Amino acid sequence: MEPTGAAAVIIGNEVLTAKVVDANGPHLIKRLREVGIPLRTLEIVPDEVDLIVEAVARARLRAKYVFTSGGIGPTHDDVTVRAVALAMGRKVVRLPEMVALIREKAVDAPTAEAMRLADAPEGAVLLAQPGSWYPVLTVEDVFMLPGVPQLFRTQLEAVLAQLRGTPMHLRVLYLNLGESAVAAVLDRVALDMPHVAIGSYPMFDRSLDYAVKVTVESVEPDAVEQALARLQTGLPAGSVVRTE
Amino acid sequence: MEPTGAAAVIIGNEVLTAKVVDANGPHLIKRLREVGIPLRTLEIVPDEVDLIVEAVARARLRAKYVFTSGGIGPTHDDVTVRAVALAMGRKVVRLPEMVALIREKAVDAPTAEAMRLADAPEGAVLLAQPGSWYPVLTVEDVFMLPGVPQLFRTQLEAVLAQLRGTPMHLRVLYLNLGESAVAAVLDRVALDMPHVAIGSYPMFDRSLDYAVKVTVESVEPDAVEQALARLQTGLPAGSVVRTE
Repeated sequence: MEPTGAAAVIIGNEVLTAKVVDANGPHLIKRLREVGIPLRTLEIVPDEVDLIVEAVARARLRAKYVFTSGGIGPTHDDVTVRAVALAMGRKVVRLPEMVALIREKAVDAPTAEAMRLADAPEGAVLLAQPGSWYPVLTVEDVFMLPGVPQLFRTQLEAVLAQLRGTPMHLRVLYLNLGESAVAAVLDRVALDMPHVAIGSYPMFDRSLDYAVKVTVESVEPDAVEQALARLQTGLPAGSVVRTE
Repeated sequence: MEPTGAAAVIIGNEVLTAKVVDANGPHLIKRLREVGIPLRTLEIVPDEVDLIVEAVARARLRAKYVFTSGGIGPTHDDVTVRAVALAMGRKVVRLPEMVALIREKAVDAPTAEAMRLADAPEGAVLLAQPGSWYPVLTVEDVFMLPGVPQLFRTQLEAVLAQLRGTPMHLRVLYLNLGESAVAAVLDRVALDMPHVAIGSYPMFDRSLDYAVKVTVESVEPDAVEQALARLQTGLPAGSVVRTE
């Protein structure tokens, strides 16, 4: 079966060493959800070629679209291009269009290190970004986005404009009983309707008027309504505080 | 070589589908840094046995301590115990001490589903938690923490109180030149001193008085100072705005 959906690889020693809190992962999760592309997994790995190669190769087995964040600048710790090339069995080449863009952008003659920004896995395609000189670096369905959050966000929008998703339908039940008291009913419906995702989230906050939040979702609205009806019938009388 | 440090596996459809923003990953990253236990990788995976098994097995190859978050309740989507057991080649057994705790805690007779909380990989050890009836479920150096943030935090502290880390020494250089202009110097020092981690982070915010933040860190304070001195000598005159 062809993989569908997306997987993400966040490259960043700075995140793993608590120097910054990752903003790109949560933003990507939110935007993919909004456009209806399911996210399978997200990995945060250090700036190490081997770990990035493995994570990207794994992401490509799991999902159609792979998003990476970080490690595409000109310094020694920027190893994403090399790692993505290795994961895809490609050479790293210097892209003439990118060389031209860097020359055009530079005030003085660009340094040898600045020119590293023109290196990419063979067969890479540059996706022009409205309002920025710097294009999105893509290879097949791997999108190498920068780690700097402002740049990550604008480049992500340029990519998402090209993709097509299927929005999910979601209903929510709020229950006044604990998980142990409702687990048997949830289990039964989840087992009977495997195409509907049922989630159960206990809350331990006495200021809330419910104890468990149950989510029911699918790309098929009818299936969601049917599962919701079955849950409402099966749950103990009076346990549903409200639905959404 | 024996693996060192930690790796994290966050189990949560609710995170990947943007229903909640994961708070446990960032909190774990911050606390591990504070106690001096390096974090190798963090993966967010859905509530699916196969993906959790793979992620836990991988985490155990990469790191000494493995922290999981989520999936340990009594409902159908709570599959972490089974997955950790599979990843470690162990059976799932019912722990008598945990059965006793659940009976003691329950007001009425506990449901069959409530009793699922007593299931654990064979050989699991319960780590008592001050101020809570619910102990931390551990197997060797795998710590299965709950996904609910308040519970995750208190259980994490019970675990960290048992572990010993080595705090990192960190110095920071703020530069007024772009990455391309300083990359060659950074490269040279990074290559000569592989035991020192040098990070380079460009900032694209004109309200700041610097363009690049360079971090220098190691468990050895002398090595950090030596790398810092080499960077200061090698960088273009006047490019260092300040150090920290």
